[in-house]
Amino acid sequence: MAIISILTDFGDRDGFVGVMKGVIWKIAPGAQIADLTHWIEPQNVTHGALILGQAYHYFPAGTVHVAVVDPGVGTRRRAIAARIGEHIFVAPDNGLLTLPLEHAETNRWGVEAVELDQPRFWLPGVSKSFHGRDIFAPCAAHLANGVHLEEMGSPLTTPILRIAINKPEPVPGGLVGQVLMADVFGNLITNLSAEMLAGKEITAVRIGKERIDRLSTTFGENIPGSLIAMIDSSGWLSICVVNGNAQQQLAVKPGDRVEVDLR
Amino acid sequence: MAIISILTDFGDRDGFVGVMKGVIWKIAPGAQIADLTHWIEPQNVTHGALILGQAYHYFPAGTVHVAVVDPGVGTRRRAIAARIGEHIFVAPDNGLLTLPLEHAETNRWGVEAVELDQPRFWLPGVSKSFHGRDIFAPCAAHLANGVHLEEMGSPLTTPILRIAINKPEPVPGGLVGQVLMADVFGNLITNLSAEMLAGKEITAVRIGKERIDRLSTTFGENIPGSLIAMIDSSGWLSICVVNGNAQQQLAVKPGDRVEVDLR
Amino acid sequence: MAIISILTDFGDRDGFVGVMKGVIWKIAPGAQIADLTHWIEPQNVTHGALILGQAYHYFPAGTVHVAVVDPGVGTRRRAIAARIGEHIFVAPDNGLLTLPLEHAETNRWGVEAVELDQPRFWLPGVSKSFHGRDIFAPCAAHLANGVHLEEMGSPLTTPILRIAINKPEPVPGGLVGQVLMADVFGNLITNLSAEMLAGKEITAVRIGKERIDRLSTTFGENIPGSLIAMIDSSGWLSICVVNGNAQQQLAVKPGDRVEVDLR
Repeated sequence: MAIISILTDFGDRDGFVGVMKGVIWKIAPGAQIADLTHWIEPQNVTHGALILGQAYHYFPAGTVHVAVVDPGVGTRRRAIAARIGEHIFVAPDNGLLTLPLEHAETNRWGVEAVELDQPRFWLPGVSKSFHGRDIFAPCAAHLANGVHLEEMGSPLTTPILRIAINKPEPVPGGLVGQVLMADVFGNLITNLSAEMLAGKEITAVRIGKERIDRLSTTFGENIPGSLIAMIDSSGWLSICVVNGNAQQQLAVKPGDRVEVDLR
Repeated sequence: MAIISILTDFGDRDGFVGVMKGVIWKIAPGAQIADLTHWIEPQNVTHGALILGQAYHYFPAGTVHVAVVDPGVGTRRRAIAARIGEHIFVAPDNGLLTLPLEHAETNRWGVEAVELDQPRFWLPGVSKSFHGRDIFAPCAAHLANGVHLEEMGSPLTTPILRIAINKPEPVPGGLVGQVLMADVFGNLITNLSAEMLAGKEITAVRIGKERIDRLSTTFGENIPGSLIAMIDSSGWLSICVVNGNAQQQLAVKPGDRVEVDLR
Repeated sequence: MAIISILTDFGDRDGFVGVMKGVIWKIAPGAQIADLTHWIEPQNVTHGALILGQAYHYFPAGTVHVAVVDPGVGTRRRAIAARIGEHIFVAPDNGLLTLPLEHAETNRWGVEAVELDQPRFWLPGVSKSFHGRDIFAPCAAHLANGVHLEEMGSPLTTPILRIAINKPEPVPGGLVGQVLMADVFGNLITNLSAEMLAGKEITAVRIGKERIDRLSTTFGENIPGSLIAMIDSSGWLSICVVNGNAQQQLAVKPGDRVEVDLR
């Protein structure tokens, strides 16, 4: 059973994603399709890369992930397909695949990639502004049908583009990281991972004017309204207000500084 | 064909629900999955229970309903699976299943339930904050695959938790109920059911400072802008503004009083 | 593999669409279901007709499209099913099918239509306010199962209702059209099509107090913040702000005037 995930910044109001599903099912009528999210901030490739990077590996091996956050649509940016480990990706070549590529390095997975330059796999009459419908969806459907990656296009002659996802910096007595994004509950996800903090004791987390004295392991151990720090379900240090919204309460935004004191 | 419905308070922005579908399809790749809603008010178990209770019975017998509104995640609240009549539910034990359990009493359906305490059916490395992904989704997928309920966990030694959903009170000449919730159109759903009103004539519905003189049977029989009372599609008395938004116009909220005069 | 698309104005908060999927799968458990959109402006039939008209033809032949924007629910408006070319539609008879009917005229496709007047294909106990669940979803499922159109109801004795979708008017030196709608990015879609403009040079596009001097072919050729005009992915002239929101910036709304000077 072929499985396809779709991540875009299209929202769900205009039928764009529904049209992509129609295009997919015209080619691969049995494919199971999951919406990953369509609420990536408009044209925010970093946001798309982060959400994709923490989601794709929960899907079955062989899943085709279509990611369309595409500020360069209609320009010369490449459209690519890549097999990274056991997953297949179809996306503009703008950094959306940064995290799977990092995972491949860490885990020594194989990576193969092609430029989607074979119009026979596209819709006829490709538009200048909606390659999600005209190129990415049909190519994903052909891949889901079992067409080999090497048939879909020419091998890449330069590496897949990656974006810089800032890493925390060591400072005396700790680490300085930053807020990557807020989730729908207003929890602030940072670029400080459980792995970086392993084996050490956190004696303070500082963000804006606030200071948190310890790491919580659950929401439930704190009283509602408390500002807490905990390792979230993806393994990132996150700053949360129990039953509340840390983003609104602290008025912080992606890129803001988070300091951790370690012992 | 296995069918799974998912109800959460996760919204659709962060990919959480997409990840749950990936987890499900890793175990049960052919399962059909319907989103019931992901816009339950954050951590509002009552809201979740009401929406689930009026929706589940429209699904085919054997559907597995996953409901995750889970303020107690990471604490000792139980994770449970239950067969209630012809439907199967997977949820935290916090009251989400109150309405199916009431329906079972009314209709003398059988109820079997277990605590989900068998880690072999979970994802490895369960997080403290996302049991929807780590426990509920994989257990739902195994149930959809036909694993028997009794294999999934130990029989419950205490009853499934129920929440109090306020019932209307009889007063001289009528009933006093309350607003349960507003739907997306701003229609106010009350806890007064068609059954409670059957065989009687409604001579007035009072809410806030407003008084409605009769029950309408359709929107279309009234002029746009009218404040009306009618039995909604789930059998509840609801207060609506024709082509408008009663919640905004009346500025009422869940729990506010609704009085009905009967003859 | 039967495919069904659903377009409504129900939003995604109250479980209404999930319930429709449950009803469909009770009858046609293998049907693939795509959400087209559930964010049609409440009871705005024109908005629904436009979105449906630009989306349906991307789906496979034989797809059943359920469209429920239904201000007349519970009144005598007809519920209909129609085969228009290779697609099947199930909807209230209020103008939602206007664009497929226009396409049928242009392309000389066959059209067959019936009134859905056979209660054996409905849910028992049809409500006055939710025919999406009680009539349209089950009828769509039976059609997806292969029940013939003529079995579903009586042939129509009067034509399917169409709404007027304003056409641009020729004026000396150009065309005067209007804004049809804005998409989620704030791009303004007009009723001026690529076909109407073919073979001519656009020397100015005027909207509100703004004047755009030429047609762009891509977003990427302009600097961020530019106000541009381009042919969108559905073939309509659209007014956009590169990486911005034209609807907010210009404060225009559907129906507002757009003038094009042609040479």
